[in-house]
Amino acid sequence: MRVLGIDPGLTRCGVGVVDGSIGRPLTMVDVGVIRTSSSLPIAQRLVTIERGLDAWIEEHRPDAVAVERVFARSDVSTIMGTAQASGIALVVAARRGLPIALHTPSEVKAAVSGNGRADKAQVGAMVVRILRLTELPRPADAADALALAITHVWRGGAQSRLDAAVAANRRPVRTR
Amino acid sequence: MRVLGIDPGLTRCGVGVVDGSIGRPLTMVDVGVIRTSSSLPIAQRLVTIERGLDAWIEEHRPDAVAVERVFARSDVSTIMGTAQASGIALVVAARRGLPIALHTPSEVKAAVSGNGRADKAQVGAMVVRILRLTELPRPADAADALALAITHVWRGGAQSRLDAAVAANRRPVRTR
Repeated sequence: MRVLGIDPGLTRCGVGVVDGSIGRPLTMVDVGVIRTSSSLPIAQRLVTIERGLDAWIEEHRPDAVAVERVFARSDVSTIMGTAQASGIALVVAARRGLPIALHTPSEVKAAVSGNGRADKAQVGAMVVRILRLTELPRPADAADALALAITHVWRGGAQSRLDAAVAANRRPVRTR
Repeated sequence: MRVLGIDPGLTRCGVGVVDGSIGRPLTMVDVGVIRTSSSLPIAQRLVTIERGLDAWIEEHRPDAVAVERVFARSDVSTIMGTAQASGIALVVAARRGLPIALHTPSEVKAAVSGNGRADKAQVGAMVVRILRLTELPRPADAADALALAITHVWRGGAQSRLDAAVAANRRPVRTR
């Protein structure tokens, strides 16, 4: 499966595409950031993010999209922009009927490094190792997007197989 | 000028269209709410809001859009949805090249009632009076959207005339 990970942000929106399935090596397809200038009106910045994400989906045709679940933190001015950008990411994916999963930062840390409280450096090192990269993609938003995509392949894949198993077990019962 | 006021929200997104100009009576063109069920995934709810707002713009062809500026308040779970819905409102308007203004709740209260700390009932009573309605539109989100549109006609109109005057004064200087 091919997953587009999105680390939403108004100034830097991280995007990373990963191919793979559980139990096989994962491959990085592409990684980058969509940047918007803080000198532009917020509506223009959001439209730039929308167009950028649309272009990434158009180019890479992911099977699913994984978006970081946004929480309110201390910096209120940042969190509003992040929430707005995450809303755009969700709409862009949902309009195309793509399955969407939201993963919290600690879910991503736990999936990638085995420790929900891992620091940036630990997560980054694991992203490099898992995708067999020669160096960590920068800025951090780009690496975080890859970590989200990895998380989704591993968690989402497991969930899909679980759903399929449950559905398969249910099927014979529906005899009418 | 015709203004679409949007009071963003995930469960109820208020929309109100007002026609008018400064110094003349204002007219309500339409008012309502776009509702989305909390049982749906958030991405689906945001797409419903996007489609709803697009339909309102398509039907009423406003000259400008006024959106409530969202601030972080105590209820963190609500504010994230509100921020995401406001992001969608901004993108829907900006995609069509419509001028967008953000007004804070206290700007709206001050513009409509003369008091930035007016309560809901006072603002509602003034909306009814200004638009010469027989009763206050409900729910409150619908009335708030009308108050936003009124605010924009009065404040935005003044700002537009100022901008036009500044532009007119600048023009003769550009002789090259």
